[in-house]
Amino acid sequence: MHKPALAQGILFTDQYQLTMAQVYFRLGIHEQPALFEHFFRSYPDYRRHQAGYCISAGLEPLVHWMQEAAFGDTEIEQLRAQRGRTGEPLFADDFLTWLRRSGSFDGLSLRALPEGRVAHPHVPLTVVEGPMAMAQILETALLNHINYQTLIATKAARMRESAGEGQVLEFGLRRAQDTGANAGTRAALIGGADYSSNLGMSLVMGLPPKGTHAHSMVQAAMVLGLGELGAFRAYAETYPDDTLLLVDTVDTLGSGVPNAIKVFEELKRKGHRPLGIRLDSGDLAYLSIQAAKMLNDAGFPDTAIVLSNDLDELVIWQILTQIRSEARQEGIEPESLIKRLVFGVGTQLITSTGYPALGGVYKLVAFQHESRWKPAVKISDSPDKTANPGHKRAWRLYDRRGRATADLLALTDEVVENMDELVLRHPSDITKTRTVSREEVTLEQLHQEILREGRVVYEWPGLEEMRRVRREDVARLDPGVRRLIHPHIYHVSLSDALWRLKYELIAAARGTSTGNV
Amino acid sequence: MHKPALAQGILFTDQYQLTMAQVYFRLGIHEQPALFEHFFRSYPDYRRHQAGYCISAGLEPLVHWMQEAAFGDTEIEQLRAQRGRTGEPLFADDFLTWLRRSGSFDGLSLRALPEGRVAHPHVPLTVVEGPMAMAQILETALLNHINYQTLIATKAARMRESAGEGQVLEFGLRRAQDTGANAGTRAALIGGADYSSNLGMSLVMGLPPKGTHAHSMVQAAMVLGLGELGAFRAYAETYPDDTLLLVDTVDTLGSGVPNAIKVFEELKRKGHRPLGIRLDSGDLAYLSIQAAKMLNDAGFPDTAIVLSNDLDELVIWQILTQIRSEARQEGIEPESLIKRLVFGVGTQLITSTGYPALGGVYKLVAFQHESRWKPAVKISDSPDKTANPGHKRAWRLYDRRGRATADLLALTDEVVENMDELVLRHPSDITKTRTVSREEVTLEQLHQEILREGRVVYEWPGLEEMRRVRREDVARLDPGVRRLIHPHIYHVSLSDALWRLKYELIAAARGTSTGNV
Repeated sequence: MHKPALAQGILFTDQYQLTMAQVYFRLGIHEQPALFEHFFRSYPDYRRHQAGYCISAGLEPLVHWMQEAAFGDTEIEQLRAQRGRTGEPLFADDFLTWLRRSGSFDGLSLRALPEGRVAHPHVPLTVVEGPMAMAQILETALLNHINYQTLIATKAARMRESAGEGQVLEFGLRRAQDTGANAGTRAALIGGADYSSNLGMSLVMGLPPKGTHAHSMVQAAMVLGLGELGAFRAYAETYPDDTLLLVDTVDTLGSGVPNAIKVFEELKRKGHRPLGIRLDSGDLAYLSIQAAKMLNDAGFPDTAIVLSNDLDELVIWQILTQIRSEARQEGIEPESLIKRLVFGVGTQLITSTGYPALGGVYKLVAFQHESRWKPAVKISDSPDKTANPGHKRAWRLYDRRGRATADLLALTDEVVENMDELVLRHPSDITKTRTVSREEVTLEQLHQEILREGRVVYEWPGLEEMRRVRREDVARLDPGVRRLIHPHIYHVSLSDALWRLKYELIAAARGTSTGNV
Repeated sequence: MHKPALAQGILFTDQYQLTMAQVYFRLGIHEQPALFEHFFRSYPDYRRHQAGYCISAGLEPLVHWMQEAAFGDTEIEQLRAQRGRTGEPLFADDFLTWLRRSGSFDGLSLRALPEGRVAHPHVPLTVVEGPMAMAQILETALLNHINYQTLIATKAARMRESAGEGQVLEFGLRRAQDTGANAGTRAALIGGADYSSNLGMSLVMGLPPKGTHAHSMVQAAMVLGLGELGAFRAYAETYPDDTLLLVDTVDTLGSGVPNAIKVFEELKRKGHRPLGIRLDSGDLAYLSIQAAKMLNDAGFPDTAIVLSNDLDELVIWQILTQIRSEARQEGIEPESLIKRLVFGVGTQLITSTGYPALGGVYKLVAFQHESRWKPAVKISDSPDKTANPGHKRAWRLYDRRGRATADLLALTDEVVENMDELVLRHPSDITKTRTVSREEVTLEQLHQEILREGRVVYEWPGLEEMRRVRREDVARLDPGVRRLIHPHIYHVSLSDALWRLKYELIAAARGTSTGNV
C-alpha cells in the first residue's frame, strides 16, 4: 500500500476531472480555450468572531506543483487499468495517448492576486485560461493549495492584529493535517506570524526556527534527581545566550519562576543575557503579571515572556485587555510588560479553528466557441452564488487618504481608467449602487500575470517582500474592516456593464432551461 | 525558497526537539532508555454533537516515515548553520557528529493500537521506548501523523453510523490542508468511507476512485449550444455503463431530472443500465423523494441518488429522518429510497469541522536511571491531565454478551489475567470504583508490538482487514456509546496498583517542588 508518490503528482486530483476531460475529448473541445476563475464567496466566520478581509497565499507552491506534474507512463498505466461497472476500460486508448502527449499544464496562462495581498469575496484569487481539459484537471490542486494557504494567512493576520507589536510564533506542526503542516507554516509566516517552531519549513522559508523546551526535559531531570533547577541549569549551560525556560512543569510561581531567576542570575554573573521564560498553562494574564514582577524585582526587566496554550486572536486580545486593566495595581507598567510578550499559537492558527476550510470555488466564466469567446454562467438559487461571467479586470479603489474603499470587477474591454464616473453596483442587491467621481479615487489593477502558456513571467517575491505587501495592504484598510468581531463589510462591486451582462445571461439561461426539456 | 524536501524528512519536527536533544547530550542521557506514551485526553466534541469513541489510524505511514527519516549531510549542514543571539553556533560539533552517526529511529521500539481499532481517552495509541534523544525528536511527527488520521477515521466512523447501509464517498481533497489531504483520504477509508474521489490516493489504497462530473461540463455544453441534455448525452456516450449525472446545474426537477431520464431511456434502448444522478444543492431530502418518484415512474427504480453539499453526520441523519416521515405521502417506500442513497462528504469529513485537531499528547512516563526504570510524572492542575506513570499494559474487558465494557490500564508486572477480581478505579475521581469478577469478563490486550529496536515485527494489514477490525470493534460497543449526540461515557479505568503509584508520585513531586526552590 506504500507508494505515496503516485498520489502527489498529477493524480493529486479528483477522479471526475479525468472523466470530464475524456468527455471534452469526445466532444472535441478538450483543447478549446476556456476561462476559469477561482474566488471565495464569503469571509471566514469563526462563529464567535469574523474576518473582514483575507490574505492571499499559496500561489508559488501551486505553480511549482504545476510545473512538475505530468502524465507519465506510471500515471497512464494506472488510468488504463481503471474499469467501469461492466469491466470495460473507463479511459479509451486515444484519450490516454492524447493525455500522455499533451496532458501537462504547459498550455495554461494564469493571472493572480500576489501572495500577501488583501483579498475580498468574489474578486478572483486566480484566473486560469487555456485548453479546456487541462484547465479542468487543474481545479482540485489549485483549490487545495490556495484555499488552505489563504485561510491560514488570513488567520495569522488576525493574530497579528490582536498581538499588536508582540511577536507571534507559529507552533502548529503537531496539530496539522499531516504534511499539510508545511503549507500552513508557510502561509502563517506570510500572513502575520514572525517565526515558526517548524524546523524544516522555517529553513525552507529562510528563517531561524524558534523553540524552547518541553516538560519532558524537566521530568527527565527530575528522575535523575536534578530537579527542575538542574534541568534549567543544563539548558542554560547548553544555550547560555539563548536561555528560554518553560516554568510550569511543577508550579509556575512557586518553583518555575524562582528557579528560572536563579539560573538567570548565574548566567548574568558569567556575562550572559537570559532570553526569557515560557508560560504554558493557567491564567496567562495573571501569571505574566506576577512573573514580570518577580523578574523585575530580580533585575531582569527585559526578559521575554512567551505565552502558549490554545491561544487565538480573542484570547490574545483578552490577555492584553486584562493586563492593561490589572497590571498597574501590581506595580507593573502595562505597556512595558506587553512589549515583552511573545505569543505561541498552535492549533487555532494551523487549523483555523471555527472555520477550517475557505470554500473557494473554481468556475467556468467563459469558453471559446467558433473562435469567439462566450461568457458562461451557472444559475444558482441566489445571484450572490452565481459567478460573474466573462473576461474581467479587478480594480482596487483608494480614496484621497489612501484608504482602500472598494474592489471593482469590470469587463476587460471597459476602460475604467478613463471614465469620469465609476458606477459601483452591489453584486446581488439591485437597489444598491454607489457612484464615485474618477478624481476622488486612485485605481490599482489587482491581478499580476504569473504564467503565460505555462511559462513563468513573474518574479517570485521573497518572504520579506510578501510580508511588506501584506503590511501595506492591511494598513490601507479602514479600521472597521480590520475589527476582529463583526467587522465592517468592505465593498466589492460590479461595473454597470458587467452587472448588465450577468443579469442578461441569467435571464437567457433561465429561458434555455425550460427549452431543454 | 522552493526546496520543500528538506521539510519532509527528519526536520519535519519542532525546533525544540533538537535543542532538547542537545541538552540530553550534554547531560549524557541522550542514549538512556526512555518510555513515552501518546494518548488523547478527551473525545472529539463537535459542539452540536460529540464522539463516544475514536478509531485509531495513521500508524503505517508514520512507521514508513520513521524508516526513511535520518540526519543526512544536508540536514546536519542546516543545523550547523543555525546561530544563537550572539552569533555562536546553536549546535556544537560533538552533538552534530553524534546526530549524523546515531540520529535515526533504529533504536526505538514501538507498541501501538492497530489501525481501525476503537480507541478511548488515556489509553495510549502508541508507546515508544528507546534512547531519550531520538524518542524525543520523534514526538512531533508521531503526533502529526496519528492525531490527524485518528481524528478523520473517527469522523468517518460517525458518517458511517448515520448513513446506515448507504454508501459514503469521501470528496474532501479540495478542502484539506494541502498534501495532508492524502492522509485524510486514507483515514476516511479506514474509518468508514467506502470510496474517495481522490484519484491518486484511491489508487494507492487499492480502490477505484469515484466521481461524476461538475457543473462546468454542463456549462461548457450550454455555450456550445448543446444544452444540459447535450452534456448528459456526451457523458452517457463516453460512459454508457457508468452514467451518473449531476442534475442541478439549471433546475433540478424542471430540467436536470427530466433530461437525465431522457438519456437513461436512450441508454436502456441500447442495452445499458444507467448508474444514477447526483443532487448537489437545495433541500436534499425533498429533492431525493421527488427525483425518486420521477425515476420510478420512468422505469428506473434502482438508479443511485448521490447526495452532496456540505453533509455531515447530523445532516445525513436529518435527511434520512425526513425521508422516513415524508416519502410515503408521496407514494415512495422510504427504505427502498434510502437503499439507493449515496452520501458524498467533503469539508466536514476532511477537516473534522467543529473539532479540527485531536489534541493527542506525547508524555514521558518512565526513564531509566542507574540501570533501573523510574516512573515519571508531571503534575497538572487536575489529576485527569496528569499522564499515568510507568510501564503499563492496556486491556479491554468484554462482558458475557461480548460487549466491550471497559478499558483498563494496569502496570506491566500486574498479572491481570489471573486476578479473581478486577478493581477498576476512575482515573481522577477517588470516589468512583467498580469491581468486576474475573469470570464475568473476557480480557484482551490492546497493544501490538510494531517495532523492535527499529525493525518492523508486525505484518501491516490491508485496507479490508483494517475495515473489518473497525466494523467488529464498533459492533462490540454499547449502542449508547455509538450515539451521535451526548453519547454514554465509556469506562476507562486504572488498576488499583497503577492508581496508587500515580498518586504517590504526585504527592512526592509536590514535595520535591518546594524543595527545589
